Amino acid sequence: MSERFLQACRRRQVDRIPVWFMRQAGRYLPEYRRLRRKYSFLRLAKTPELACAVTLQPLRRMPLDAAIIFSDILLPLEAMGARLSFAPAPRVADPVRSLSAVRRLREPDPREELGFVLEAVRLARRELAGRTALIGFAGAPFTLASYLVEGQRPDGCPRTKVMMYSHPQAWDLLMRKLRRVASDFLRAQAAAGAQALQVFDSWAGALSPEQYRRYVLPHSRWLLDSLRGCGVPVIHFGTGTAAFLEDFAGAGGDVVGVDWRLPLPEAFRRVGARAVQGNLDPALMLAPRPVLRSAVRAVLAGAAGRRGFIFNLGHGILPQTPWDNARAVVDWVHDYGRSA
Amino acid sequence: MSERFLQACRRRQVDRIPVWFMRQAGRYLPEYRRLRRKYSFLRLAKTPELACAVTLQPLRRMPLDAAIIFSDILLPLEAMGARLSFAPAPRVADPVRSLSAVRRLREPDPREELGFVLEAVRLARRELAGRTALIGFAGAPFTLASYLVEGQRPDGCPRTKVMMYSHPQAWDLLMRKLRRVASDFLRAQAAAGAQALQVFDSWAGALSPEQYRRYVLPHSRWLLDSLRGCGVPVIHFGTGTAAFLEDFAGAGGDVVGVDWRLPLPEAFRRVGARAVQGNLDPALMLAPRPVLRSAVRAVLAGAAGRRGFIFNLGHGILPQTPWDNARAVVDWVHDYGRSA
Repeated sequence: MSERFLQACRRRQVDRIPVWFMRQAGRYLPEYRRLRRKYSFLRLAKTPELACAVTLQPLRRMPLDAAIIFSDILLPLEAMGARLSFAPAPRVADPVRSLSAVRRLREPDPREELGFVLEAVRLARRELAGRTALIGFAGAPFTLASYLVEGQRPDGCPRTKVMMYSHPQAWDLLMRKLRRVASDFLRAQAAAGAQALQVFDSWAGALSPEQYRRYVLPHSRWLLDSLRGCGVPVIHFGTGTAAFLEDFAGAGGDVVGVDWRLPLPEAFRRVGARAVQGNLDPALMLAPRPVLRSAVRAVLAGAAGRRGFIFNLGHGILPQTPWDNARAVVDWVHDYGRSA
Repeated sequence: MSERFLQACRRRQVDRIPVWFMRQAGRYLPEYRRLRRKYSFLRLAKTPELACAVTLQPLRRMPLDAAIIFSDILLPLEAMGARLSFAPAPRVADPVRSLSAVRRLREPDPREELGFVLEAVRLARRELAGRTALIGFAGAPFTLASYLVEGQRPDGCPRTKVMMYSHPQAWDLLMRKLRRVASDFLRAQAAAGAQALQVFDSWAGALSPEQYRRYVLPHSRWLLDSLRGCGVPVIHFGTGTAAFLEDFAGAGGDVVGVDWRLPLPEAFRRVGARAVQGNLDPALMLAPRPVLRSAVRAVLAGAAGRRGFIFNLGHGILPQTPWDNARAVVDWVHDYGRSA
């Protein structure tokens, strides 16, 4: 339910705990896999009617409280001039590793070069008709930079860190461009009808606390500050942030997304006056029902008595997940505290 | 220097801070790459004279305080019956995902099926002649299990967690087999001349604190307890252990290895009465000298005034590392506190 999710983002009283799943529109759904047999991932993402249809797919299976627009955090990089491909792992054919390469990156007008996402947002918002909240999203500057610099799945982000340390001018310019691109794109999504925005810093966990504070935090803070005028709640999501959660939360946003490595009571204590989203280990969605159920209960118990909790996974839903396990989780979350 | 390293492991006074690098015998060295053009990785690892030669290679470049035997944590899995390949990423062609598959795993006698490692240890120990300490190693049960179950680089370890939760009997049997195999192998390495042992739990960071405590810790503790009779110090290394470091350290061992995500003062505080090894981010070894130097100083400052510190990286040295940067780090660590 739209209001349930939006109210929880603002730490207001809700009738039940809201729930949605990262990557809930994706490969674990048979109807998504059917579409993918006809269309490439990029074709789906770039055709507003198809992206809208995929966005809505999980809602026909289960009463989720939010829908997230079907897209990918890397699409703005293509609009900046990077040669992006998915085969299926993402690749940037011309990694950005010098000041001149950073200078060549364009700052696209999202209404022109990412208009297909904005149109998908408009279509989905109309279809949802207020029943379910619609979330727009973008990558955080660091996570976007790590793909641009590494050129592939950025495990450990070695070359990205080399740029931070060895080419601080290039790093700074890169992060300033990325934060502006992400900001323009997110604000355009809100203007197109997104009722909440999520910023994904999926690779922040590769950083030391010192690296995060010095090279990343100022840019994330700028981005999150720039979204205040949108009038919609903002979720700041990261994985592996246990070592610097206070800084991560301090960067801004209304909701902090955490993974399963952080027990929820600790997360609530450390993020201060913000809502928390998380944090079931996606691997548990493949477990037998009794195991899954007790894991869901443990997450719920970790948030008991707290305002401002949104149930989600600690990272994206795994493609092998049985969809009816996802539905069962939605029901358990909604039933929590009612039957006891 | 042999004694410097071994004394630091036991938290005794040392003349200088000892230093070595994980994967110090490897691809960043030109002479290693030359050998690899002639021999496959497995051929090098399985020919005692070659494995010994590779083990010693970095010592001719820089005065390291310890050498680690050239091998791979996955070789015992092959001896257990897994169809292992490196091309170059490790693969297990027949992943272990059922009780019957776990039952089929053999528990090899390391003197027979891993004799090439033990012979390499004997050769290297003789060559080193007490000048440099020799470290033997094995994977921790969880990290070995994650490769066996996933069949490939175990990012996030989803299937491994499914086995924990869904097939507790299979999981328990698998971990018991792996801990015995690792224990036999490590004790045989000590008997062959290894003067210290390192247990690599490289993927522990995929786990939640609860998962670590329930499904992993008892087996790591059993393994580490079983090594007490060896009379050599034991290093328990993990990455991404910030969320459950007290439990990780409590599993046992004389030295706890930590990565760059944990500031050293916090690591010393949380591991209790144990030595600490770490924790320079390997990416910094690619940075310009002044940047690298100040990062090394920051690590050293984090351990200042502590007995029982061994300088190392937070994970393995990256193949792109200039070898003379590694040498410079060794010199800086040894000079620390002398010129000031």
